[in-house]
Amino acid sequence: MWNQAYEYITNVELWINLGQGLLKIFLIMFISTIFIRIGKLAIGKIFFFRGKSPLRISERRENTLAKLLENILTYVVYFIAIVMVLEAMTINVGALLAGAGIVGLAVGFGAQSLVKDIITGFFIIFEDQFSVGDHIRVASFEGTVEEIGLRTTKIKNWTGELHILPNGSITEVTNFSIHNSMAVVDISISYETDIPEAERIVQELLNEVADKYEEIVTPPELLGIQNLAASEVILRVVCEVQPMSHFKISRLLRKDIKLRLDEHGIEIPYPKMVMYNRKEQVG
Amino acid sequence: MWNQAYEYITNVELWINLGQGLLKIFLIMFISTIFIRIGKLAIGKIFFFRGKSPLRISERRENTLAKLLENILTYVVYFIAIVMVLEAMTINVGALLAGAGIVGLAVGFGAQSLVKDIITGFFIIFEDQFSVGDHIRVASFEGTVEEIGLRTTKIKNWTGELHILPNGSITEVTNFSIHNSMAVVDISISYETDIPEAERIVQELLNEVADKYEEIVTPPELLGIQNLAASEVILRVVCEVQPMSHFKISRLLRKDIKLRLDEHGIEIPYPKMVMYNRKEQVG
Amino acid sequence: MWNQAYEYITNVELWINLGQGLLKIFLIMFISTIFIRIGKLAIGKIFFFRGKSPLRISERRENTLAKLLENILTYVVYFIAIVMVLEAMTINVGALLAGAGIVGLAVGFGAQSLVKDIITGFFIIFEDQFSVGDHIRVASFEGTVEEIGLRTTKIKNWTGELHILPNGSITEVTNFSIHNSMAVVDISISYETDIPEAERIVQELLNEVADKYEEIVTPPELLGIQNLAASEVILRVVCEVQPMSHFKISRLLRKDIKLRLDEHGIEIPYPKMVMYNRKEQVG
Amino acid sequence: MWNQAYEYITNVELWINLGQGLLKIFLIMFISTIFIRIGKLAIGKIFFFRGKSPLRISERRENTLAKLLENILTYVVYFIAIVMVLEAMTINVGALLAGAGIVGLAVGFGAQSLVKDIITGFFIIFEDQFSVGDHIRVASFEGTVEEIGLRTTKIKNWTGELHILPNGSITEVTNFSIHNSMAVVDISISYETDIPEAERIVQELLNEVADKYEEIVTPPELLGIQNLAASEVILRVVCEVQPMSHFKISRLLRKDIKLRLDEHGIEIPYPKMVMYNRKEQVG
Amino acid sequence: MWNQAYEYITNVELWINLGQGLLKIFLIMFISTIFIRIGKLAIGKIFFFRGKSPLRISERRENTLAKLLENILTYVVYFIAIVMVLEAMTINVGALLAGAGIVGLAVGFGAQSLVKDIITGFFIIFEDQFSVGDHIRVASFEGTVEEIGLRTTKIKNWTGELHILPNGSITEVTNFSIHNSMAVVDISISYETDIPEAERIVQELLNEVADKYEEIVTPPELLGIQNLAASEVILRVVCEVQPMSHFKISRLLRKDIKLRLDEHGIEIPYPKMVMYNRKEQVG
Amino acid sequence: MWNQAYEYITNVELWINLGQGLLKIFLIMFISTIFIRIGKLAIGKIFFFRGKSPLRISERRENTLAKLLENILTYVVYFIAIVMVLEAMTINVGALLAGAGIVGLAVGFGAQSLVKDIITGFFIIFEDQFSVGDHIRVASFEGTVEEIGLRTTKIKNWTGELHILPNGSITEVTNFSIHNSMAVVDISISYETDIPEAERIVQELLNEVADKYEEIVTPPELLGIQNLAASEVILRVVCEVQPMSHFKISRLLRKDIKLRLDEHGIEIPYPKMVMYNRKEQVG
Amino acid sequence: MWNQAYEYITNVELWINLGQGLLKIFLIMFISTIFIRIGKLAIGKIFFFRGKSPLRISERRENTLAKLLENILTYVVYFIAIVMVLEAMTINVGALLAGAGIVGLAVGFGAQSLVKDIITGFFIIFEDQFSVGDHIRVASFEGTVEEIGLRTTKIKNWTGELHILPNGSITEVTNFSIHNSMAVVDISISYETDIPEAERIVQELLNEVADKYEEIVTPPELLGIQNLAASEVILRVVCEVQPMSHFKISRLLRKDIKLRLDEHGIEIPYPKMVMYNRKEQVG
Repeated sequence: MWNQAYEYITNVELWINLGQGLLKIFLIMFISTIFIRIGKLAIGKIFFFRGKSPLRISERRENTLAKLLENILTYVVYFIAIVMVLEAMTINVGALLAGAGIVGLAVGFGAQSLVKDIITGFFIIFEDQFSVGDHIRVASFEGTVEEIGLRTTKIKNWTGELHILPNGSITEVTNFSIHNSMAVVDISISYETDIPEAERIVQELLNEVADKYEEIVTPPELLGIQNLAASEVILRVVCEVQPMSHFKISRLLRKDIKLRLDEHGIEIPYPKMVMYNRKEQVG
Repeated sequence: MWNQAYEYITNVELWINLGQGLLKIFLIMFISTIFIRIGKLAIGKIFFFRGKSPLRISERRENTLAKLLENILTYVVYFIAIVMVLEAMTINVGALLAGAGIVGLAVGFGAQSLVKDIITGFFIIFEDQFSVGDHIRVASFEGTVEEIGLRTTKIKNWTGELHILPNGSITEVTNFSIHNSMAVVDISISYETDIPEAERIVQELLNEVADKYEEIVTPPELLGIQNLAASEVILRVVCEVQPMSHFKISRLLRKDIKLRLDEHGIEIPYPKMVMYNRKEQVG
Repeated sequence: MWNQAYEYITNVELWINLGQGLLKIFLIMFISTIFIRIGKLAIGKIFFFRGKSPLRISERRENTLAKLLENILTYVVYFIAIVMVLEAMTINVGALLAGAGIVGLAVGFGAQSLVKDIITGFFIIFEDQFSVGDHIRVASFEGTVEEIGLRTTKIKNWTGELHILPNGSITEVTNFSIHNSMAVVDISISYETDIPEAERIVQELLNEVADKYEEIVTPPELLGIQNLAASEVILRVVCEVQPMSHFKISRLLRKDIKLRLDEHGIEIPYPKMVMYNRKEQVG
Repeated sequence: MWNQAYEYITNVELWINLGQGLLKIFLIMFISTIFIRIGKLAIGKIFFFRGKSPLRISERRENTLAKLLENILTYVVYFIAIVMVLEAMTINVGALLAGAGIVGLAVGFGAQSLVKDIITGFFIIFEDQFSVGDHIRVASFEGTVEEIGLRTTKIKNWTGELHILPNGSITEVTNFSIHNSMAVVDISISYETDIPEAERIVQELLNEVADKYEEIVTPPELLGIQNLAASEVILRVVCEVQPMSHFKISRLLRKDIKLRLDEHGIEIPYPKMVMYNRKEQVG
Repeated sequence: MWNQAYEYITNVELWINLGQGLLKIFLIMFISTIFIRIGKLAIGKIFFFRGKSPLRISERRENTLAKLLENILTYVVYFIAIVMVLEAMTINVGALLAGAGIVGLAVGFGAQSLVKDIITGFFIIFEDQFSVGDHIRVASFEGTVEEIGLRTTKIKNWTGELHILPNGSITEVTNFSIHNSMAVVDISISYETDIPEAERIVQELLNEVADKYEEIVTPPELLGIQNLAASEVILRVVCEVQPMSHFKISRLLRKDIKLRLDEHGIEIPYPKMVMYNRKEQVG
Repeated sequence: MWNQAYEYITNVELWINLGQGLLKIFLIMFISTIFIRIGKLAIGKIFFFRGKSPLRISERRENTLAKLLENILTYVVYFIAIVMVLEAMTINVGALLAGAGIVGLAVGFGAQSLVKDIITGFFIIFEDQFSVGDHIRVASFEGTVEEIGLRTTKIKNWTGELHILPNGSITEVTNFSIHNSMAVVDISISYETDIPEAERIVQELLNEVADKYEEIVTPPELLGIQNLAASEVILRVVCEVQPMSHFKISRLLRKDIKLRLDEHGIEIPYPKMVMYNRKEQVG
Repeated sequence: MWNQAYEYITNVELWINLGQGLLKIFLIMFISTIFIRIGKLAIGKIFFFRGKSPLRISERRENTLAKLLENILTYVVYFIAIVMVLEAMTINVGALLAGAGIVGLAVGFGAQSLVKDIITGFFIIFEDQFSVGDHIRVASFEGTVEEIGLRTTKIKNWTGELHILPNGSITEVTNFSIHNSMAVVDISISYETDIPEAERIVQELLNEVADKYEEIVTPPELLGIQNLAASEVILRVVCEVQPMSHFKISRLLRKDIKLRLDEHGIEIPYPKMVMYNRKEQVG
């Protein structure tokens, strides 16, 4: 038994092969990196000339396609590099593996999410679900698309975080940049207020405000009593605005309505409670 | 060892083949795009003539089918294109792969959700679960259907967001556009109110209101005491209305009932609390 | 390389075959639709005669079976149609596919939920878990069953939404239409109330009420003190009623009990709090 | 191309075979139903004689086994019927299917939950996890077991709903009918109360009450101070009672303790709050 | 076609074989039951003699092993029985099945959770994760272990429910019976209290209490200020006690501390609030 | 048919073989147990000598490795034992199994989580993710590592519970024992307080306190205003302390700051509310 | 039968082989450890010289690559070691295994998450998703990246915990160190305040503050009325700052604004409530 163990360890060729393999791997990775840089420069050139060529591609998809070509280049080069690395490794290791089938099964299963990422990536680009610069929400991540790759997509949050998502997990996308947004403002007035009068005042303001802000697409509208809440009657105002400008317009409408209601002495009510003070019957 | 690595890198044919492959891929994608544009024009024509033909298809599915045909065209063309691209790539890459079985397994697993999307897409259209223009809810997404494709469905939210869902994740659909909706209004009255009297007043109003709004299908009905809540007795009013007009009718009913109860001096109560003021026995 | 790409594109037969395939698909779909309409008429006839035939099937399953037969007809026809379509497509596309095994694997996995839907559908009908017209709850969807198909079930909510569920996601069903329902009414009385007296009054009312509403199956029963809550003692009344009429009876019982307690001057208490007003020791 | 499509449609044999297949399916289903009725009668007979036979099976499993035998009969008959139906269908359809392996894979995966249901069903019955009439909880469903089948189990809720669960989803069962239940009553007393005195009074009552209700197995016990809550000291009383009678006994104990504490003037406290009224330093 | 259907139905042998199969199944199940009873008696005998034999097994695992042997016996016998039943059935049914591979696949997948249960069961017993009589928690189920089987484990809750869990779902076990428990008591004192003084009083009591209750392993310890809450300062007392006696000791400590603090006039504070009464500027 | 059944049952060899198999199993398990005890003693010896040997293993991994060797020994022996048991069983049972492939599939799937446990176990030890004695959190379980095995890890909670986790479910580990901990104390002061003054007082105390407790690594720091809450301004103090001593230091800091603020008359505020007492306009 | 069992146990060779196998395993693990140490030293050297070489790698990825090379070395060596161990074991054990296919299946499935970890690890490094030193969030874990390995990534929380995550569970990464952060401060002012005046005061301060703190990138901005809450009007201030300094700047801005508002006598309001004191009509 000691002989067998000794043979494994003193087997000089095994260690030399191992060393050579590591060097080969390093070399492959270095050359690949150089190759990719050249390729990216070339893509830059192509898109420069394309700008003057008669080829008509919608302006909005330009960035997306440039990024994509770079991406495909990178992956194809790396894929060849990894296959080379694996081959370099299998010279030493592969022969030691009795059950190659087991490894194959494990790799097949382990790589399925990689394949799914790439398939989904293709469809996101071909179906033009979103482009670089769109504001989208995927699961709990929301922000502006910074890069669409074959395998991952990068989304920049408005607070500066960069979300990096594998495409396979982008199943349900919500795109905010295609249609106009809707600014929704809820105003509370007290139950004692004359509701038709309050509606009249708010409607008057809304008519004035329509042309004041250029982001407004159709004049704001007073929908009516949204809810009879515990302490207040809630009126809802909606307004169609340019994509993603609903936060800004909501804030402006909120201020305008608050000031106008103040002018007419209409109270935005605090929480209210009716209290019965009772004499205790027990000690 | 250096020789092997050197051979890989200086292998001129490998790089030329790679370059050719990339060009081929670009060409295939360009031609496919042109082909699809022509196809879409053709589909537009067909549907123009169809309008006059004796072929009778329910009006409501017209848009759906036009979109679908465009969709099938796009996918068939792209599918052929991708197969061509894959073939173009395998000239270079395929030969390097020892275990093609592994890749096959990974691709098979990775593509299963794509297949599921298409199968579910077929059934959504064949079973007519919803059409373009219907208001539906799928999981947490709700809105008007904008496009039903073979692989994805697009739903437009009332606030302007566009939800893009792969069909495979559309398992449980709720369709609001097929049956009449039900407007539900809960009114709180205080425990001290004469309940039969209050019911009489509300019922009287409901009788008047039935013909006032054209969206109402059957006259609104006062169901009775829905709950004896902490501070209030809750009466429930329901009213069958045209599909998706229940939000509007609810708002109108809420206003009418509030004003009518005000007229009769019936209070919508604030939260109430009985308070015992006790002298402290300790310090 | 250019030759290969050129050959693909200028390959006239490929495009012709593609066009023919699309026409064939259109034709198959059209004829299938016609065939199904005739079949449905036939099924209607069969059930018309069946009404007079000696074949005895429980009244309640009649609709279910009619819908089912239509369903099977539809699916069998569409299945043949799709197989034809696939065949029509494979003339062009199939030959291009190197690894048919990969596609087979993906289709096999992707179609498994379809198979599961049909298997579950069979069992729902054979085991008579629910019939058309029953009120059921599946996961978060509740309503009246409108249609049981081989692949999907349609449930209509009382507020008018139509839920469409694939049968495979109907694992745990709750059926409200088979057994009598139980109306449960909780009444709060204050801690200061004489509890045996209050129980006597409620019990008296319950005895009177038993024959008043025809939906009541067994006379309502006062179970006792369900909870000693923060501000109130909660008495529970239960009453076995006809299936799905518990909402109505609960509302009626709630009104009767409220009025009766008012008559006897028994208070339904508001939330209570004991408040110690303390002089501050610090500034 | 038109020829091929035409041939499919005008292929008379195909349509005739399809019609024959549908009739065959109908016939098979009808005869199976008759056969099952006879079988169920036979099972009823066997269990009638078994009542007098020397075969000793625990009384509690009797219903379960009768239901099970009926169930096995039904499934075996239906299984044969479905196999016949499938065979009848494959005469027409089967030959059209190129990749039978794909269908096999899909069916194998789709049917796995069916197999799991039956395996789990066997174990529920063999291990006697619960019998017809037991009160059990499975996931969020609770009630009395109405029927244990090979594939599904039916549980009747106390409010009348019938829950139908596939056995495969019955992983973790809670059975309430095997051991005695424990009635748990928490009583709040105020912080100012003399706690040892209150404990003495409650303990006194518990001693008296032990023989009053026949459902009580061991005399109730006062465990001590369960919690020092915000406004009250909570004492816990527990009492071992007959299976599933803990709701009833809890209600009775709650009433007895409330009345006894009233007699001794011990207050069940309302929520309390100490309030500092402060003069404002700012306007 | 009618001939084929007729042949199926009038095929006498088929029905006879079916009948024989059912009888055979019944017979197999009956004999298996008898065999198991004898086996269980034998196991009882073995353990009786083992008590006197020199074989040394830790006292705590005795019950577990007896239950296990009975369990293995039961499963081996039933397994043979089921195989016999399946064989008896396949005489009739098996031949009808075209694609045995499909069934094999479905059974293989369906049975995997059964295999997982048994594997996990083995490891629970070999690794001695818990024994009969231990108090454990698995997922949301907690109680005393009543039986550890090869496939399922039974846990009795302190309120009397019996939880039956398949071993495969026992992934993460929490065992309360191996190490000493820790009683944790949080005491609220008001912000105005002299905290060092209060700590001194509590510490004094803890020193006295250490020898009073025999379940206490190490004297209780006052950790310090656990939290500065909204209305109170929370002190934490911990005490190492015998396994599972921490509920009892907590209750006793709570009472002792409450009474001791009362003696020294230290208040356990009610929720507090500072209230500013403001004159309204608006109507 | 009766013959076949009779033959199964009266087949003497079958029963004898079954008996022999059970005895063989018992014998194998007994001898394995003995063998393991001897092996564990031997491991103890090895580690005794290793203490003096020049082999240098980091002190912290010593316990881990001893436990691991015992573990490997146990599993290798049990594995051989189980294989023997299975072989002993297959003499009787194996031959009865028609579809060995089905069982293989089920076992392969059922055992995958076992394999995953062992693989993850190896990596936890090789990568030194945590050692015996470390304080870690895995999912919802937190405590001190008591034993790292090949298949399971045991974690002891500070309240005495022992959590037993299969290694396969230890995906995301949080280790508290490697880096210094951070004690975080939030202090509320009222809005009326002079904030710069309060910050000065707290900072002064923090400077004094740095050398007072030896667990403090870097002097505590006052970060500033963490939040402007409803009734209070919240200041945050952080302090780097030795691993896992942050609970202790937090308690001490909390007390020191509370006493120091008391000295300077700075109030920790109760919840505050501004109350408008309004005359009711309605009855 | 006894002979067979006896033969297993007295089979001397089996035990000797087992002993030899264990020793071999020990030897392999020892030599591997030595080998790795030497390799790590070598990597250190390479990176020392690299610092002077013309090879240009972005400064930020330096640590990441050093760690990675060490990691690859470790795994390759351990992989060879484990294969050797497995071989050493299979001499004894392998021959005992009947169904090697079963084991292969189980290992293949069990190892798939290991393969997934390594694949994802490769992509994290190649795509440069994050580097050592970046502040990232993955699922619920957030902190500074300490080490990126092939299989696991280590993240250090700011409170000192070290999170160890397998790369396979790093699907969605949020990187905070790439773009500037955004400090968000919400300020409450009472409804009675003159809002335009308050906005003017805050804006004035923001202009002054822009140059005061060097972490600020663009001057802070007052967005407007973010919400009309129950008791207060909420103004939102945002400010682009250097990555990860938003917590610090928020705290500083909060203090500055609070002090400035105090100067101008603008109240940050407490929760408010309007209270109606009502005379009770009932006793």
